[in-house]
Amino acid sequence: MAEDINRNNACMLIDGETQICIDPSEPVLRVLGKKYSILLISVIGNENTRRNFNDIRKSIPESSNSIISRRIRDLISTGIIKKASENGIVTYALTDFGYELRKKLIPILRFIEMKTR
Amino acid sequence: MAEDINRNNACMLIDGETQICIDPSEPVLRVLGKKYSILLISVIGNENTRRNFNDIRKSIPESSNSIISRRIRDLISTGIIKKASENGIVTYALTDFGYELRKKLIPILRFIEMKTR
Repeated sequence: MAEDINRNNACMLIDGETQICIDPSEPVLRVLGKKYSILLISVIGNENTRRNFNDIRKSIPESSNSIISRRIRDLISTGIIKKASENGIVTYALTDFGYELRKKLIPILRFIEMKTR
Repeated sequence: MAEDINRNNACMLIDGETQICIDPSEPVLRVLGKKYSILLISVIGNENTRRNFNDIRKSIPESSNSIISRRIRDLISTGIIKKASENGIVTYALTDFGYELRKKLIPILRFIEMKTR
Protein backbone atom coordinates (compact mmCIF):
# COMPACT_ATOMS: atom_id res chain seq x y z
CA MET A 1 0.00 0.00 0.00
CA ALA A 2 1.58 3.30 -1.06
CA GLU A 3 1.83 5.76 1.81
CA ASP A 4 -0.08 8.45 -0.06
CA ILE A 5 -3.20 6.34 -0.45
CA ASN A 6 -5.34 5.62 2.55
CA ARG A 7 -6.42 2.01 2.27
CA ASN A 8 -9.97 3.07 3.09
CA ASN A 9 -10.00 5.27 0.02
CA ALA A 10 -9.21 2.27 -2.11
CA CYS A 11 -12.20 0.14 -1.07
CA MET A 12 -13.66 0.57 -4.52
CA LEU A 13 -14.90 -2.90 -5.19
CA ILE A 14 -18.15 -4.41 -4.02
CA ASP A 15 -18.43 -8.18 -3.92
CA GLY A 16 -21.84 -9.16 -2.65
CA GLU A 17 -22.10 -7.88 0.92
CA THR A 18 -18.42 -7.04 1.32
CA GLN A 19 -15.86 -4.63 -0.04
CA ILE A 20 -12.45 -5.27 -1.52
CA CYS A 21 -9.79 -2.70 -0.71
CA ILE A 22 -6.84 -2.66 -3.03
CA ASP A 23 -4.29 -0.02 -3.89
CA PRO A 24 -4.20 0.40 -7.70
CA SER A 25 -0.43 0.83 -7.43
CA GLU A 26 -0.03 -2.51 -5.58
CA PRO A 27 2.90 -4.16 -7.44
CA VAL A 28 1.23 -7.56 -7.97
CA LEU A 29 -1.83 -5.90 -9.52
CA ARG A 30 0.38 -3.67 -11.65
CA VAL A 31 2.43 -6.56 -12.99
CA LEU A 32 -0.74 -8.47 -13.94
CA GLY A 33 -1.74 -5.41 -15.95
CA LYS A 34 1.26 -5.78 -18.26
CA LYS A 35 1.51 -7.66 -21.53
CA TYR A 36 2.16 -11.43 -21.27
CA SER A 37 2.21 -11.55 -17.44
CA ILE A 38 -0.89 -13.77 -17.17
CA LEU A 39 0.40 -16.13 -19.88
CA LEU A 40 3.90 -16.23 -18.41
CA ILE A 41 2.69 -17.16 -14.93
CA SER A 42 0.56 -19.90 -16.48
CA VAL A 43 3.31 -21.25 -18.73
CA ILE A 44 6.05 -21.18 -16.10
CA GLY A 45 3.82 -23.20 -13.76
CA ASN A 46 3.16 -25.94 -16.32
CA GLU A 47 3.85 -29.38 -14.85
CA ASN A 48 5.41 -27.82 -11.78
CA THR A 49 8.88 -27.97 -13.29
CA ARG A 50 11.75 -25.51 -13.73
CA ARG A 51 12.03 -24.08 -17.24
CA ASN A 52 14.77 -22.23 -19.04
CA PHE A 53 14.37 -18.94 -20.88
CA ASN A 54 14.14 -20.40 -24.40
CA ASP A 55 11.45 -22.91 -23.44
CA ILE A 56 9.43 -20.14 -21.87
CA ARG A 57 9.86 -17.76 -24.78
CA LYS A 58 8.96 -20.40 -27.37
CA SER A 59 5.77 -21.26 -25.46
CA ILE A 60 4.40 -17.83 -26.28
CA PRO A 61 4.05 -17.49 -30.08
CA GLU A 62 5.24 -14.22 -31.63
CA SER A 63 6.73 -12.88 -28.40
CA SER A 64 10.20 -11.33 -28.39
CA ASN A 65 13.19 -12.03 -26.14
CA SER A 66 13.28 -8.46 -24.89
CA ILE A 67 9.68 -8.24 -23.69
CA ILE A 68 9.78 -11.73 -22.14
CA SER A 69 13.00 -11.01 -20.27
CA ARG A 70 11.62 -7.69 -19.03
CA ARG A 71 8.44 -9.36 -17.82
CA ILE A 72 10.38 -12.17 -16.13
CA ARG A 73 12.29 -9.50 -14.19
CA ASP A 74 8.97 -7.89 -13.17
CA LEU A 75 7.64 -11.26 -11.99
CA ILE A 76 10.80 -11.97 -9.99
CA SER A 77 10.71 -8.57 -8.32
CA THR A 78 7.10 -9.11 -7.21
CA GLY A 79 7.86 -12.54 -5.74
CA ILE A 80 5.80 -14.46 -8.31
CA ILE A 81 8.65 -16.38 -9.94
CA LYS A 82 12.12 -17.34 -8.78
CA LYS A 83 15.36 -17.94 -10.62
CA ALA A 84 17.84 -20.76 -10.07
CA SER A 85 20.90 -22.20 -11.78
CA GLU A 86 21.01 -25.90 -12.65
CA ASN A 87 24.22 -27.28 -14.22
CA GLY A 88 25.07 -23.78 -15.38
CA ILE A 89 21.64 -23.22 -16.99
CA VAL A 90 19.41 -20.50 -15.56
CA THR A 91 15.90 -21.78 -14.91
CA TYR A 92 12.69 -20.24 -13.62
CA ALA A 93 9.85 -21.59 -11.49
CA LEU A 94 6.87 -20.19 -9.66
CA THR A 95 7.19 -19.33 -5.99
CA ASP A 96 4.51 -20.65 -3.60
CA PHE A 97 2.76 -17.31 -3.98
CA GLY A 98 3.01 -17.63 -7.76
CA TYR A 99 1.39 -21.07 -7.67
CA GLU A 100 -1.52 -19.77 -5.65
CA LEU A 101 -1.91 -16.90 -8.09
CA ARG A 102 -1.77 -19.26 -11.09
CA LYS A 103 -4.65 -21.29 -9.65
CA LYS A 104 -6.79 -18.15 -9.73
CA LEU A 105 -5.68 -17.21 -13.26
CA ILE A 106 -6.44 -20.57 -14.90
CA PRO A 107 -10.26 -20.11 -14.72
CA ILE A 108 -9.89 -16.82 -16.61
CA LEU A 109 -7.85 -18.45 -19.36
CA ARG A 110 -10.33 -21.33 -19.60
CA PHE A 111 -13.16 -18.83 -19.88
CA ILE A 112 -11.40 -16.83 -22.63
CA GLU A 113 -10.54 -20.06 -24.47
CA MET A 114 -14.18 -21.15 -24.35
CA LYS A 115 -15.55 -17.78 -25.46
CA THR A 116 -13.18 -17.45 -28.40
CA ARG A 117 -13.39 -21.01 -29.68
CA MET B 1 -7.45 -16.52 -33.29
CA ALA B 2 -5.08 -14.70 -35.66
CA GLU B 3 -4.74 -16.47 -38.98
CA ASP B 4 -0.98 -16.70 -38.70
CA ILE B 5 -1.07 -18.73 -35.50
CA ASN B 6 -2.20 -22.31 -35.63
CA ARG B 7 -4.37 -22.87 -32.60
CA ASN B 8 -2.51 -26.11 -31.93
CA ASN B 9 0.71 -24.16 -31.57
CA ALA B 10 -0.90 -22.10 -28.86
CA CYS B 11 -1.81 -24.99 -26.54
CA MET B 12 0.85 -23.83 -24.16
CA LEU B 13 -0.92 -24.26 -20.87
CA ILE B 14 -1.32 -27.44 -18.91
CA ASP B 15 -4.10 -27.64 -16.36
CA GLY B 16 -4.07 -31.01 -14.70
CA GLU B 17 -4.79 -33.57 -17.41
CA THR B 18 -5.90 -31.06 -20.03
CA GLN B 19 -4.43 -28.29 -22.14
CA ILE B 20 -5.59 -24.74 -22.62
CA CYS B 21 -5.16 -23.32 -26.12
CA ILE B 22 -5.16 -19.57 -26.32
CA ASP B 23 -3.77 -17.15 -28.85
CA PRO B 24 -1.56 -14.61 -27.04
CA SER B 25 -2.93 -11.93 -29.38
CA GLU B 26 -6.55 -12.75 -28.44
CA PRO B 27 -8.06 -9.28 -27.80
CA VAL B 28 -9.68 -10.11 -24.43
CA LEU B 29 -6.39 -11.45 -23.10
CA ARG B 30 -4.52 -8.45 -24.46
CA VAL B 31 -6.87 -5.94 -22.87
CA LEU B 32 -6.54 -7.68 -19.48
CA GLY B 33 -2.79 -7.21 -19.82
CA LYS B 34 -3.14 -3.43 -19.80
CA LYS B 35 -3.01 -1.05 -16.87
CA TYR B 36 -6.27 -0.63 -14.90
CA SER B 37 -8.32 -3.10 -17.00
CA ILE B 38 -8.86 -5.55 -14.13
CA LEU B 39 -9.81 -2.74 -11.73
CA LEU B 40 -12.07 -1.04 -14.27
CA ILE B 41 -14.04 -4.22 -15.01
CA SER B 42 -14.46 -4.75 -11.27
CA VAL B 43 -15.47 -1.16 -10.51
CA ILE B 44 -17.87 -0.81 -13.44
CA GLY B 45 -19.66 -3.98 -12.30
CA ASN B 46 -20.17 -2.73 -8.73
CA GLU B 47 -23.79 -3.07 -7.65
CA ASN B 48 -24.82 -3.95 -11.18
CA THR B 49 -25.59 -0.32 -12.01
CA ARG B 50 -24.67 2.07 -14.80
CA ARG B 51 -21.92 4.54 -13.92
CA ASN B 52 -20.73 7.73 -15.51
CA PHE B 53 -17.15 8.56 -16.42
CA ASN B 54 -16.38 10.70 -13.37
CA ASP B 55 -17.66 8.11 -10.90
CA ILE B 56 -15.54 5.49 -12.56
CA ARG B 57 -12.42 7.63 -12.71
CA LYS B 58 -12.73 8.72 -9.07
CA SER B 59 -13.05 5.09 -7.96
CA ILE B 60 -9.46 4.51 -9.03
CA PRO B 61 -7.13 6.71 -6.96
CA GLU B 62 -4.37 8.53 -8.83
CA SER B 63 -5.61 7.52 -12.27
CA SER B 64 -5.87 10.11 -15.05
CA ASN B 65 -8.77 10.92 -17.37
CA SER B 66 -6.73 10.07 -20.44
CA ILE B 67 -5.69 6.56 -19.43
CA ILE B 68 -9.17 5.71 -18.09
CA SER B 69 -10.90 6.91 -21.24
CA ARG B 70 -8.44 4.99 -23.41
CA ARG B 71 -9.01 1.83 -21.38
CA ILE B 72 -12.80 2.26 -21.49
CA ARG B 73 -12.55 2.37 -25.28
CA ASP B 74 -10.48 -0.86 -25.23
CA LEU B 75 -13.09 -2.54 -23.01
CA ILE B 76 -15.95 -1.44 -25.28
CA SER B 77 -14.17 -2.68 -28.40
CA THR B 78 -13.65 -6.13 -26.83
CA GLY B 79 -17.32 -6.42 -25.82
CA ILE B 80 -16.63 -6.25 -22.07
CA ILE B 81 -18.43 -2.98 -21.35
CA LYS B 82 -21.16 -1.09 -23.14
CA LYS B 83 -22.02 2.58 -23.37
CA ALA B 84 -25.44 4.18 -23.07
CA SER B 85 -26.93 7.62 -22.71
CA GLU B 86 -29.33 8.38 -19.86
CA ASN B 87 -30.89 11.87 -19.74
CA GLY B 88 -28.00 13.17 -21.78
CA ILE B 89 -25.36 11.62 -19.52
CA VAL B 90 -23.11 8.93 -20.96
CA THR B 91 -22.96 5.88 -18.71
CA TYR B 92 -21.13 2.57 -18.81
CA ALA B 93 -22.08 -0.92 -17.68
CA LEU B 94 -20.71 -4.42 -18.10
CA THR B 95 -22.07 -6.60 -20.91
CA ASP B 96 -23.17 -10.14 -20.01
CA PHE B 97 -19.72 -11.30 -21.09
CA GLY B 98 -18.15 -8.63 -18.89
CA TYR B 99 -20.14 -9.84 -15.86
CA GLU B 100 -18.98 -13.40 -16.38
CA LEU B 101 -15.41 -12.17 -16.69
CA ARG B 102 -15.74 -10.04 -13.52
CA LYS B 103 -16.82 -13.11 -11.54
CA LYS B 104 -13.52 -14.75 -12.47
CA LEU B 105 -11.48 -11.64 -11.66
CA ILE B 106 -12.87 -11.06 -8.16
CA PRO B 107 -11.04 -14.09 -6.63
CA ILE B 108 -7.75 -12.65 -7.89
CA LEU B 109 -8.43 -9.27 -6.33
CA ARG B 110 -9.47 -10.92 -3.03
CA PHE B 111 -6.26 -12.94 -3.09
CA ILE B 112 -4.08 -9.87 -3.74
CA GLU B 113 -5.94 -7.93 -1.03
CA MET B 114 -5.34 -10.74 1.47
CA LYS B 115 -1.66 -11.17 0.58
CA THR B 116 -0.86 -7.45 0.80
CA ARG B 117 -2.79 -6.68 4.00
